[in-house]
Amino acid sequence: MADLVPVMSVAELEAFMEREFPQMRMGADTTRIEAVGPGRAVLRLGFSERNLRPGGTISGPAMMALADYAMYAAVLAHIGPVGLAVTTSFTINFMRKPAQADILAEARLMKLGRALAVGDITMSQEGAGGPVAHATCTYSIPPR
Amino acid sequence: MADLVPVMSVAELEAFMEREFPQMRMGADTTRIEAVGPGRAVLRLGFSERNLRPGGTISGPAMMALADYAMYAAVLAHIGPVGLAVTTSFTINFMRKPAQADILAEARLMKLGRALAVGDITMSQEGAGGPVAHATCTYSIPPR
Amino acid sequence: MADLVPVMSVAELEAFMEREFPQMRMGADTTRIEAVGPGRAVLRLGFSERNLRPGGTISGPAMMALADYAMYAAVLAHIGPVGLAVTTSFTINFMRKPAQADILAEARLMKLGRALAVGDITMSQEGAGGPVAHATCTYSIPPR
Amino acid sequence: MADLVPVMSVAELEAFMEREFPQMRMGADTTRIEAVGPGRAVLRLGFSERNLRPGGTISGPAMMALADYAMYAAVLAHIGPVGLAVTTSFTINFMRKPAQADILAEARLMKLGRALAVGDITMSQEGAGGPVAHATCTYSIPPR
Repeated sequence: MADLVPVMSVAELEAFMEREFPQMRMGADTTRIEAVGPGRAVLRLGFSERNLRPGGTISGPAMMALADYAMYAAVLAHIGPVGLAVTTSFTINFMRKPAQADILAEARLMKLGRALAVGDITMSQEGAGGPVAHATCTYSIPPR
Repeated sequence: MADLVPVMSVAELEAFMEREFPQMRMGADTTRIEAVGPGRAVLRLGFSERNLRPGGTISGPAMMALADYAMYAAVLAHIGPVGLAVTTSFTINFMRKPAQADILAEARLMKLGRALAVGDITMSQEGAGGPVAHATCTYSIPPR
Repeated sequence: MADLVPVMSVAELEAFMEREFPQMRMGADTTRIEAVGPGRAVLRLGFSERNLRPGGTISGPAMMALADYAMYAAVLAHIGPVGLAVTTSFTINFMRKPAQADILAEARLMKLGRALAVGDITMSQEGAGGPVAHATCTYSIPPR
Repeated sequence: MADLVPVMSVAELEAFMEREFPQMRMGADTTRIEAVGPGRAVLRLGFSERNLRPGGTISGPAMMALADYAMYAAVLAHIGPVGLAVTTSFTINFMRKPAQADILAEARLMKLGRALAVGDITMSQEGAGGPVAHATCTYSIPPR
């Protein structure tokens, strides 16, 4: 979907998120938006003890929250600051045990319609042989 | 799967979770295990400002964490305290905007094999006309 | 969702399907609608050599088609004969190798809104220790 | 996963499928394997009246069967002719109403482990503004 054009910058997105979601950081308080581009957003989940679970691996829910947040950032980047867009369905596959290190999440929009957005999110770590997890997500967009 | 028999009580599960997951409450620090039964576990996510998102609704990731946790409790209740069981795939559908109130999650095991468990989780609120969300989850179980 | 009331009978559904879907039986030509009830529809996939795959098991796509068809029947049974309702998302987990025998699919509506229906479908065989497969499905409903 | 190396050619795959799956074409008898590459397989579903449903669109189950088949081809291309690999979970999102034309399905492996493969499948048509559908799939691989 190379015809998509972002309408918000990383700084604008970060400011909007900070204002609208102060209380819901969900263990993801070390999450940063790194980049936005046509149909894309890249986020980084900084490694933190808080996100660990037994076995020393990063918890599933921390990665779910990261993927959902990355999709939200990609949608907002293209439709502007609409706080009321909501996830309607979400599927994630965990593929590799994450190392105790940052996770990068790249969200890619596959459809951005008037009422519905669909995208997928690939989560990876440096040096891993492939993604640690992959999610698909549908978002309902309020009338604009 | 009425032939399933829990081997851990609610109190034993709560004590295990408290010991093994102190740092990963994921905004779910108001989550309580309410009951376990053959092939089932019921959890309650107490309402908290922290789980809200714009529009005054409970955040998607808070419900994802709840569903994952409910499945984990159902699995552990039947196989005993195995910290290393991990989610391998997870799908959730959001169906109704949750009210600012507690959410009950009932996990039901559909398969409990040697290496893999599959279940679904129905999340509901009192007085709603049906579930607020529904998830399916597969868990990988370490060799015992 | 006990408040749902079917508006089509099994015979009316069968007649509608026969008329609208003559060419798309997808190996499911032995599928029969067995019952409809409040929020539910039950279908039977008759065992047929055509649905087998290597290993002598019923093919995954045959069960996907069955689940999708069961959901469609459940939706139509409650909204009336609307040929244009379409699946928007679908997730299936395969849990047990099916025997060479009929499969029953029970679709259950969890939400039936103006524009969207959500349900799940449990597929089982007599004598198995639990479901052979479980699917969740969202359907887009055209304006009525 | 650029380190993956196919071990079967298109012709070998086609011959294997023809031999092992003669009876399960599922309305997909116009499906052809077009190419295999490192971690990838590309299939074409030729347009056929049989795959239509009301509204003149290609049926959901025909696309599910196509996606499952594409994943199977990608897995076999890299592990060799193992008839007993089976789908364990499958999620599909439908994004655009397909035109009455061929559909290309590109399967991409994200993990190819000893016991489990995970991949996604992007289905597209010439001239569409983006994918018509996208699926993710996990495959269980028998011990070799």
